[in-house]
Amino acid sequence: MRHIRTNGPRSRAAIAAATGLHKTTVSSLVEELLSRRLVRELGMDHSGAAGRPGRGIALSPHVGAVGIEVNVDYLAVHGSDLAGRTVYEHRTGFAGAGRDVERCLDEITAAAHRALTHLRDRGVAPIGVTVAVPGLIDVTRGVVVLAPNLGWHEVPIVDRLAHSLPDQLWIGVDNDANLAALAEHTSGVAAGTDDLVYLTGEVGVGAGVILGGRLLRGADGFCGEIGHMTVEPGGDVCGCGRTGCWETKVGLAELVRRVTPDAAYGLERGPLPDPQDRVAEVARRLAAGDRVARHAVTDVGTWLGLGSAILVNLFNPRTIVLGGYFAALAEHIIPAAQAALARRAVANPVSRCHFVASRLGFTAAARGGAGVVLDRVIEHPTTVSVPAPAAVVARVPGPLPTPAVPAPAVPVR
Amino acid sequence: MRHIRTNGPRSRAAIAAATGLHKTTVSSLVEELLSRRLVRELGMDHSGAAGRPGRGIALSPHVGAVGIEVNVDYLAVHGSDLAGRTVYEHRTGFAGAGRDVERCLDEITAAAHRALTHLRDRGVAPIGVTVAVPGLIDVTRGVVVLAPNLGWHEVPIVDRLAHSLPDQLWIGVDNDANLAALAEHTSGVAAGTDDLVYLTGEVGVGAGVILGGRLLRGADGFCGEIGHMTVEPGGDVCGCGRTGCWETKVGLAELVRRVTPDAAYGLERGPLPDPQDRVAEVARRLAAGDRVARHAVTDVGTWLGLGSAILVNLFNPRTIVLGGYFAALAEHIIPAAQAALARRAVANPVSRCHFVASRLGFTAAARGGAGVVLDRVIEHPTTVSVPAPAAVVARVPGPLPTPAVPAPAVPVR
Repeated sequence: MRHIRTNGPRSRAAIAAATGLHKTTVSSLVEELLSRRLVRELGMDHSGAAGRPGRGIALSPHVGAVGIEVNVDYLAVHGSDLAGRTVYEHRTGFAGAGRDVERCLDEITAAAHRALTHLRDRGVAPIGVTVAVPGLIDVTRGVVVLAPNLGWHEVPIVDRLAHSLPDQLWIGVDNDANLAALAEHTSGVAAGTDDLVYLTGEVGVGAGVILGGRLLRGADGFCGEIGHMTVEPGGDVCGCGRTGCWETKVGLAELVRRVTPDAAYGLERGPLPDPQDRVAEVARRLAAGDRVARHAVTDVGTWLGLGSAILVNLFNPRTIVLGGYFAALAEHIIPAAQAALARRAVANPVSRCHFVASRLGFTAAARGGAGVVLDRVIEHPTTVSVPAPAAVVARVPGPLPTPAVPAPAVPVR
Repeated sequence: MRHIRTNGPRSRAAIAAATGLHKTTVSSLVEELLSRRLVRELGMDHSGAAGRPGRGIALSPHVGAVGIEVNVDYLAVHGSDLAGRTVYEHRTGFAGAGRDVERCLDEITAAAHRALTHLRDRGVAPIGVTVAVPGLIDVTRGVVVLAPNLGWHEVPIVDRLAHSLPDQLWIGVDNDANLAALAEHTSGVAAGTDDLVYLTGEVGVGAGVILGGRLLRGADGFCGEIGHMTVEPGGDVCGCGRTGCWETKVGLAELVRRVTPDAAYGLERGPLPDPQDRVAEVARRLAAGDRVARHAVTDVGTWLGLGSAILVNLFNPRTIVLGGYFAALAEHIIPAAQAALARRAVANPVSRCHFVASRLGFTAAARGGAGVVLDRVIEHPTTVSVPAPAAVVARVPGPLPTPAVPAPAVPVR
């Protein structure tokens, strides 16, 4: 399955020639995967790498997965199949902050049901759902340990969703930056780069890291918790109570405080307006040639480069993909960041790591969530057996729960 | 092969039951591996997980690999087989610093030949050799980009060894901390821990990182270059010319300078005595209750914890294994390090990462070097075909080169 995913549909003979496995072994594996409906046969393959032409074997479009990104003000939902097609995409308004967790979970469950039904109606059997959450996630227990911006603490989201969704589904939860990194790797600006760091910049700063084509997780799924990395011992006090955290240097709150001290944009002055509005205001002042804004953004770039040098020394990525507000202000931030990185990273002359702005926008983490499930199918095909279409329909449980609050549909950008 | 390595020898039926593969698929794979001599048949397996008892399939003891650690004052050589036995172990004095690179390479080649001959004489066909070097290694090109303590720059060690060793061998080079981490993972204090960071502390500080049971390499094999991670911008000037590098806080030179300002142990005062002598002097003063020594070691522990907090935030390991001088002074360093880690690491309450001192001593990196080759056999078995014993002997090339300088044998500790 890995070989077909990487190289596209192939005949059994071509697979045997390329992998070095015996033809009988390949035939035996293919029969098993066909019986599990994880691959399908196409027409004759005349590409002729080796041996007689045979029917091409391709990954199945009848197997799919769903990803849901939970954010402070939206839910983004994505469904795709093993063959790589996007089957479903949807963004819904969501009041995530400071609300009753149970009602949030009801809305997430309802969004999952809508996506799963959509896939099944198109003949795609969903294998699982991954939820992307900004925070510390215990992937083993399936628990959101801490999501400060949502106000969640120890939320057993996987158990909760498993209770309401069909038994056969894999349900998972992961950090939003982890999943966005995965999406960048498969279909974003860094597609084809096997060693990358994805940085998301909002009030908090997070990272997802892919090395050797694999998402790093660590012992508890906490890899890439870079926001509170100490970059200046004894520096400014962070919201977390520590001093000199990277977030105090490159987080959006600090930038907004410096650029617009005149406006009511400080954390101290009550609820913040939408992050995009704040970034737009910074961009307006930069465009108007505001010196204060230019200095502040250059400082952010320099500290971004200094912290990224630590990431480069530790992870040795080829590319650092900038998401969140970093992407929106990339042209102003990247020059200073690249200069600081060159000064601070030991291996820079050789590794030539460079910054690049993300272009996936809001779909990145949800897209990555579906991808995680599909990767798991490819790594552990013997744990999956996709029923015939009739049986798929029969498996749908009783009536779907109605969302507690009707969620307004927002067009996907 | 992965299943057998993890679970021990198994019958075909037991493998089929445990992996979920069809019995015919398992039989086909086993036949192929038997024909390549990568597995062998044992007596009947009556463990009876499933099905009728059958002959056990085990990894072959006829396939092996060699690892060689190049250090400033010794070469450590290790040979082991697929079945996990140590077949060869040797430590040789080596004048690595400030010498002609060609003569160093001759000695390394001779040490490799001795190990390979030893393996072949015992019926073990060597598949490859990995050389461990302290420095920046370009694993793709097989080049030591920079090894400051050896004075090496752009040394194409793989090409050089490939020229003198049999054609069929895989020759590789990797960072010493990377390979030591691998050895700790398979047979050291952290065996069984799939997420660990190995820290080696000498004048320089390096790390090898294993996550999800896999060694992290990064785009160029430079992962874990932590010595020059900035921990105090504007701090002390480092040997590399940057300021505030972690090495200026936790490197052996700084500790020795603080503990023994009275002795001729500074970098400024000419050649340093053996690192072990310097560490022993620090340990003597600690044992004698020397206050200066105690303060200095506590400071090292605190900075070790602060820097390790960055590693914990980024890598989320379960264990940090301390090698080099950190291991020798572990009882004095760990308490302060653990306290600083608890204060600085975001996920510490959940991830419960702890420090532990290495016990592999001098064999770690060489052991890991052999392990890398054997892992590659298990990951890519179809690229390997082990000839029958007679053919192995026939493959040995002409007379072995004599080492340029007769190397005194040093007993392995």
